[in-house]
Amino acid sequence: MPLLGSFRHSSRVFRTTMRPLTLDALNPQLQEVQYAVRGELAIKAELYRDQLKSGSHDLGFDKVISSNIGNPQQKGLDQPPITFTRQIAALSEWPELAQLAPGVFPSDVVARAKELYHEIGSIGAYSHSQGVPFIRKNVAKFISDRDGFPSDPDDIFLTAGASAGVSLLINMLITDPSAGILIPIPQYPLYTAALAQHHGRAIPYLLDESSGWSTSVASIAEGLAKARAEGTSPKALVIINPGNPTGALLTRDTMADLVKLCEEHSLVLLADEVYQNNLHRAAQYPFTSFKKVVRELQSPVPLVSFHSISKGVSGECGRRGGYFELTNVSAEVRALVYKLVSVGLCPPLAGQIGVDSMVRPPKEGEPSYDMWKKETDTIHAALASRTRLMAERLNALPGVSCVESPGALYLFPKINIPEKAVKAARDAGKEPDAFYALALLDATGICVVPGSGFGQKEGEWHYRLTCLCPGVEEYVGKLEKFHVDFTEKWG
Amino acid sequence: MPLLGSFRHSSRVFRTTMRPLTLDALNPQLQEVQYAVRGELAIKAELYRDQLKSGSHDLGFDKVISSNIGNPQQKGLDQPPITFTRQIAALSEWPELAQLAPGVFPSDVVARAKELYHEIGSIGAYSHSQGVPFIRKNVAKFISDRDGFPSDPDDIFLTAGASAGVSLLINMLITDPSAGILIPIPQYPLYTAALAQHHGRAIPYLLDESSGWSTSVASIAEGLAKARAEGTSPKALVIINPGNPTGALLTRDTMADLVKLCEEHSLVLLADEVYQNNLHRAAQYPFTSFKKVVRELQSPVPLVSFHSISKGVSGECGRRGGYFELTNVSAEVRALVYKLVSVGLCPPLAGQIGVDSMVRPPKEGEPSYDMWKKETDTIHAALASRTRLMAERLNALPGVSCVESPGALYLFPKINIPEKAVKAARDAGKEPDAFYALALLDATGICVVPGSGFGQKEGEWHYRLTCLCPGVEEYVGKLEKFHVDFTEKWG
Repeated sequence: MPLLGSFRHSSRVFRTTMRPLTLDALNPQLQEVQYAVRGELAIKAELYRDQLKSGSHDLGFDKVISSNIGNPQQKGLDQPPITFTRQIAALSEWPELAQLAPGVFPSDVVARAKELYHEIGSIGAYSHSQGVPFIRKNVAKFISDRDGFPSDPDDIFLTAGASAGVSLLINMLITDPSAGILIPIPQYPLYTAALAQHHGRAIPYLLDESSGWSTSVASIAEGLAKARAEGTSPKALVIINPGNPTGALLTRDTMADLVKLCEEHSLVLLADEVYQNNLHRAAQYPFTSFKKVVRELQSPVPLVSFHSISKGVSGECGRRGGYFELTNVSAEVRALVYKLVSVGLCPPLAGQIGVDSMVRPPKEGEPSYDMWKKETDTIHAALASRTRLMAERLNALPGVSCVESPGALYLFPKINIPEKAVKAARDAGKEPDAFYALALLDATGICVVPGSGFGQKEGEWHYRLTCLCPGVEEYVGKLEKFHVDFTEKWG
Repeated sequence: MPLLGSFRHSSRVFRTTMRPLTLDALNPQLQEVQYAVRGELAIKAELYRDQLKSGSHDLGFDKVISSNIGNPQQKGLDQPPITFTRQIAALSEWPELAQLAPGVFPSDVVARAKELYHEIGSIGAYSHSQGVPFIRKNVAKFISDRDGFPSDPDDIFLTAGASAGVSLLINMLITDPSAGILIPIPQYPLYTAALAQHHGRAIPYLLDESSGWSTSVASIAEGLAKARAEGTSPKALVIINPGNPTGALLTRDTMADLVKLCEEHSLVLLADEVYQNNLHRAAQYPFTSFKKVVRELQSPVPLVSFHSISKGVSGECGRRGGYFELTNVSAEVRALVYKLVSVGLCPPLAGQIGVDSMVRPPKEGEPSYDMWKKETDTIHAALASRTRLMAERLNALPGVSCVESPGALYLFPKINIPEKAVKAARDAGKEPDAFYALALLDATGICVVPGSGFGQKEGEWHYRLTCLCPGVEEYVGKLEKFHVDFTEKWG
């Protein structure tokens, strides 16, 4: 270490004119990426959380509620994990536990963990890049049981959550910078972020708030025509069902129309179905998969459908698990997908076994069934009742209207923002709904995402919040009081 | 379901001329991606494994040995996981276990798991996109203890293995299609794969086999000059230390020269240091980090250094965990990195707690220390002795020469391939070393990666194999017999 004596950390002398790495040296396209769900608001919320943790009493609240993201198990929301899932995961981490702690694990869990170990071996090894073959078989069975149509394990790709799969597919479909993908407005901003990252164009189509955020073929056709007129080549149609941020569910008829539209316009259908198990009024608003509709119609439309363990009742976001299924896709394309995912080696094994637990829950009569049933029923019921209560209370506020979501984890209320507040926001260089959301965070510690992060009709303002907070009365009370105060201050 | 009666799955009638999705509809750049580590050989090995599993006796071997990838815990290699790591992981999955199975977990493990739970909450929640702050603090302490220079937790990004980080950085550094990155030949093919995916150019520089695969500044300068003459703008220099596939270690003097070269040519230094804990002859070939050298030289060179839990003695590939550290990088760039990783939400929590166990192993005197020491010593010793024995035996074969790697998990022997075999390979449209490796797989069930997958000097042939197989005598015996038979057949 000949130089060790000569340092000065606090005032490093640079011998050359070389500067630290700055933005101008980097891919300019990436600076276009926007992801409001973890953007300015979420970063500020983290700072408030740190401030509270360090003992500060300077804020007008004593906790931060992160309603910006569907993250059920996070601190403060604390939705408990499904015991069955975690028991299998614990045994997969340390298989000897079954012997070391006899009687602690139910017998079906012990048998399941043993079966998985037999198939996978250590979860510390890379698996097949497409995911453990045995788990893909179980996913295919789940899909064929759900839809009544066969599913091939070779068409299933396990992923690190749905996002990883969506990003990959967008990368594949953007053939050149004039290529575009139809995305709903409002949308989950992963889509525009991935499009920006991969040099593609977003082709927006509007959802209709006045009819419960319904999707109309006419609106998509309009988006298509406009895109073509602007020199954009449409490659694919993104549908989020149940919707995010809207929580809307498509009818079977609309789905059939959308499939036909994809046929007419040679579009790949990207079906984001991660909320398929979050249904608050399933009798009136059931879930039907696009795979089923495509097969029923005997349609040749290429379909990629995404699912995840992060949502539903499992809420296992941190495991990073999910899958996509390819339908009407050639063997060569499947081989290309395989090659691309193989560069990343494999999806996390903890996520893969999480997928297995999701697609193979305990059956009636098995030792773990009763607890599993009770836990999942409780989560479903709490989410449904909170969603209803929050929608009712928000709708009762002057200047707020809110479609009561029949699915997913969110509400997306429309808010009236007084003109003076709009002006103050513009003066501060902010979108008016971001201005509103920042004021909400400052006043209450509740972090939501402004509607401008998802896209909305010109001149309208919304925000998205999750329906995951356990103390819903206190929570909605804070939202109400803030809205009244804000309207008064700026009205 | 009005159409349910009318299906014929086996002979679907397409009403339109729309075809299943085919390659011509996709991003052509992605078809350039090559990743030999999980390529043709590995796919064929999987088929053989399936065939054996289904009871076939038609093959000339009774097991497949996957020596194509550094995957220590895979079936057949079965390097045991570190107990300490897995006990913490099991308790993180199901925290109640500490009470339900009293006395099963050592007290330091229970305390550690409790501390992690206090900091993280449920591992089923998304964490901070950059990784759990507490774990980043521990990583920073590990780095500063290792190097004797401070490390800032805000400069640490936890990742899903090193690959995810490398791919992101390459995406950021490729500003336009004329941008290039210097990569060693031979290289780990992640680099060329990521460059192909992100439309960048590889600028090769040759490592010198005759001096133990050393890296020379002259060779890099030559690569730079050639690239500039061809209109390529060099952006960064990739160094893999210890080397992959070579296992070579850089001297402190060479490292200093490389840092100076980056200064002169305004290059970002990408230091792949994932094998820093795989040192077989550490007294003669110690590891020094580039962070340390950059700080000792008080250099302004922007440095990104990558580490992983997949290698070292932990071999926890399936968890997908790792980190990178940014040095001499502006706050704006750090914010951009944060934004990009936030789109993928967060690295897997199982990988993050794996990183924590790697950077905070048990200390002498703690209950878990003795077992941890014994387990890790055993793994280090086995790897070192296997590497030596395999290198000796391969070097004793006619037409084979092999640098005895002082680090990493691999050997990269040079093989002489008889002219007739070269011709037969060319006739079959294959690289001669791929032809050799396929014949090896067919004859023995041993899967290696041809040197052409990593790059090599024109007219030379190699293959990479891991030194992970437990029954090393039998394993190396098969390699020897095959080589003799092959040489005889084609000589």
